[in-house]
Amino acid sequence: MTTERTQSDSDDRRMDKIVALTRRRGFIFQSSELYGGINGAWDYGPVGVQLKRNVKDAWWRSLVEERDDIVGLDTAILMHPMVWKASGHVDGFSDPMVDCKLCKKRFRADDLDNAICGQKPSKRPGQCGGELTEPRNFNLMFETFLGPVSDTSSRTFLRPETAQGIFVNFANVVATTRVKIPFGIAQIGKSFRNEINPRNFTFRSREFEQMELEFFVKPGTDEEWFHRWVQWRRDWYIGLGIRPENLRLVPHEKLAHYSRATTDVEYRFPFGWGELEGIANRGDFDLRQHQRGIRTVARWDGGDLQALQLVEEEQDWHRGKLSYFDEETKQRYIPYVIEPAAGADRATLAFLCDAYDEDSAPDAKGQLETREVLRLHPRLAPVKAAVLPLVRKDGQPERAMRIYEALKRRYVVEYDESGSIGKRYRRQDEIGTPLCITIDYDTSKDGTVTVRDRDSMRQVRVSEDRLLELLDETIHREPR
Amino acid sequence: MTTERTQSDSDDRRMDKIVALTRRRGFIFQSSELYGGINGAWDYGPVGVQLKRNVKDAWWRSLVEERDDIVGLDTAILMHPMVWKASGHVDGFSDPMVDCKLCKKRFRADDLDNAICGQKPSKRPGQCGGELTEPRNFNLMFETFLGPVSDTSSRTFLRPETAQGIFVNFANVVATTRVKIPFGIAQIGKSFRNEINPRNFTFRSREFEQMELEFFVKPGTDEEWFHRWVQWRRDWYIGLGIRPENLRLVPHEKLAHYSRATTDVEYRFPFGWGELEGIANRGDFDLRQHQRGIRTVARWDGGDLQALQLVEEEQDWHRGKLSYFDEETKQRYIPYVIEPAAGADRATLAFLCDAYDEDSAPDAKGQLETREVLRLHPRLAPVKAAVLPLVRKDGQPERAMRIYEALKRRYVVEYDESGSIGKRYRRQDEIGTPLCITIDYDTSKDGTVTVRDRDSMRQVRVSEDRLLELLDETIHREPR
Repeated sequence: MTTERTQSDSDDRRMDKIVALTRRRGFIFQSSELYGGINGAWDYGPVGVQLKRNVKDAWWRSLVEERDDIVGLDTAILMHPMVWKASGHVDGFSDPMVDCKLCKKRFRADDLDNAICGQKPSKRPGQCGGELTEPRNFNLMFETFLGPVSDTSSRTFLRPETAQGIFVNFANVVATTRVKIPFGIAQIGKSFRNEINPRNFTFRSREFEQMELEFFVKPGTDEEWFHRWVQWRRDWYIGLGIRPENLRLVPHEKLAHYSRATTDVEYRFPFGWGELEGIANRGDFDLRQHQRGIRTVARWDGGDLQALQLVEEEQDWHRGKLSYFDEETKQRYIPYVIEPAAGADRATLAFLCDAYDEDSAPDAKGQLETREVLRLHPRLAPVKAAVLPLVRKDGQPERAMRIYEALKRRYVVEYDESGSIGKRYRRQDEIGTPLCITIDYDTSKDGTVTVRDRDSMRQVRVSEDRLLELLDETIHREPR
Repeated sequence: MTTERTQSDSDDRRMDKIVALTRRRGFIFQSSELYGGINGAWDYGPVGVQLKRNVKDAWWRSLVEERDDIVGLDTAILMHPMVWKASGHVDGFSDPMVDCKLCKKRFRADDLDNAICGQKPSKRPGQCGGELTEPRNFNLMFETFLGPVSDTSSRTFLRPETAQGIFVNFANVVATTRVKIPFGIAQIGKSFRNEINPRNFTFRSREFEQMELEFFVKPGTDEEWFHRWVQWRRDWYIGLGIRPENLRLVPHEKLAHYSRATTDVEYRFPFGWGELEGIANRGDFDLRQHQRGIRTVARWDGGDLQALQLVEEEQDWHRGKLSYFDEETKQRYIPYVIEPAAGADRATLAFLCDAYDEDSAPDAKGQLETREVLRLHPRLAPVKAAVLPLVRKDGQPERAMRIYEALKRRYVVEYDESGSIGKRYRRQDEIGTPLCITIDYDTSKDGTVTVRDRDSMRQVRVSEDRLLELLDETIHREPR
């Protein structure tokens, strides 16, 4: 992730407004806010949970349900600790840390310039006169203990990524379905990283939800698939309304040891460019590591995992349990894997930021006032339409309620009869509802209603029989 | 939970068959099976994840989206530790345990008769000659540490229930939405309990997913609402196909200290009656406890939570942050709450067990053979229809593929052209696919296809234009 530190004041203000709106309208709250909050964990409120569900469903539908070459999976957060030894996380998933011997605080050694020490008045680490220790590695995995006894043999970790749940089930999926390479396995689920410095709203959290795909291909075809997936994944965000100019593809120049190529999809958040998703060509690294891991676990005595040496593979490693028999070529090999790994919370935040807008709308007296509006793609909008009787009498609430009941069978819609019509429009604009349907005196005469478009605020009269059709069209329309 | 120990051999065999089928067809695998597995955590395979998603979606849709008086929420697994002090879990969520001083194993003090000690040959605890300690309480919450320093002030827990995430957001939801009592807040998410003895397949797990509703009502109306929810929740299972004779309502005679009334919905699993869901009238216990909790957290010094005394409330406790102002009666009070708390994994397992059946079907030579079939409600079935060309030539695959593509736009469907038609039917029966659509020589003549019903195995000829409509009807039909 690269976050440029070139924030302008207006970007800061914009981010503040987005955070304030999402708090005020029940999209996102800090976890345990009632108790002063905890750092790096977030709760989704009534409209936020619907927005995030829509984001996750769009991802799942586009990969698992609309394609023929991807299946789904949902694996446990708690896994055998050897999984994390084999994956490399026990040994390598850490940040270098220094301790201040005076104030006892701990800091990231590679980010001391941005850290503040515990002594008053606040100072940079070391400036308080305290001696700093040499940097030591601090593992980012959350630890816990399985079962009633807390010793090294029962120690395990909260998964720091969902990907390993897919790799360790590779042989299960091949054995129980009829997938043939090239094919993918997709998973959505929570992961945990004990970040020293969670920041930028939900962007860098300790608890977060991932949407990961592992797409297995024949070695030699991996570069082609890698480039396809980079484009497809970028297009997915654009198809759901993100402005192309707010997205960029950033190829990594320095590659991690497991990666043959990595490109990030970045979004221009108000706080700078940030990674939405990394697409990596991981070669056969992960499956090979687990072939070593399953040899090693047989000899593990429950002792310290970090001191443990992985058992090296024999010469015929590509014939092991995690290999694949290609019936077309009659060859057995360890597949290569392309991994598009996205964050559900980051995607949700990007959709919110890209949708947030201010313009002007007339108030009850015809005076222009500032309007806050979320121009969310209708597929992502938490509420698809609001049904509003103009007045609370003359049969309008009853008629509106009938329309509401009919639409509700297919879509999430709201009924609202309280306050002026302008105020009710504004409420819906703030949560991104694409259509407002108003029942008025003409409705009882000719069966038509007013449909107001969130973005243009234009109103058209439509027969109430056509509403469901109109909603269908709106939700499945192309992005603006 | 009450599980009768009256298992007959045939029930054992039935359960073995269900476990074997779900393993073989990719519904459920043990977590980390590749590494020998871990106890009490499970992975859902390609068809299992779709089944469980359908169960959760049906719950969410029936509560949050179809009703006007319930909103959704999605809170973090990691919360402020004081939440668990106030809720009572730090002090009371524990089992009494004894240790064997010889073999160092730990056992539940109230279940010694069913435990086996570590000495060979296997013995009951204490029979190996080892002395057993006095019972000590062992907390069932998984512990972990937030942030880089592992001391008591950073210690927290994996949530043992999703309910508390709702209670601590009660004021947020009231402030940011227009809910009025009576109203509910619903949440689906993972919870964790460090069970000593996970057992009965996915039934008693350490990691599991809950579907919890907290329905807030005015004191005095709670008994009525409690009885309503008991009936509604029972009906939900029946509406999705559970046989009424396999469900029973079990009122608790001994009530927990927080409960004014509790009734369990139990299902007759092959291993005995087991709780699917508990509906509890919790009065104002939880909100009052959190009123105490927020007073206490201000004085907490980060020390041992168990030793901490909750600050008692003042006389006007019902006017605190977690009270509700009733605009109709102009009264302020702490609402009572009715809690229907269901397990997503248990519901999924009950639907699988109730759906599992064996009957006879003719093989390719007309000989009757045993057929395994999952008679899942079509709404829950992982795959709604399979599209099958009778032969792999004469344009049938192309025509079948066109039908498949059309149906796929709305539903999860499969295309299968490999193996005899009987074998392909059997494959779909085993995963509970309601309809098999076969394209044959007549299709090119008159545009009709054969539609085979999973349960009756009856076949009818239908025009291909009517397939989508037929699928709609099948999925939304009443339970058998």
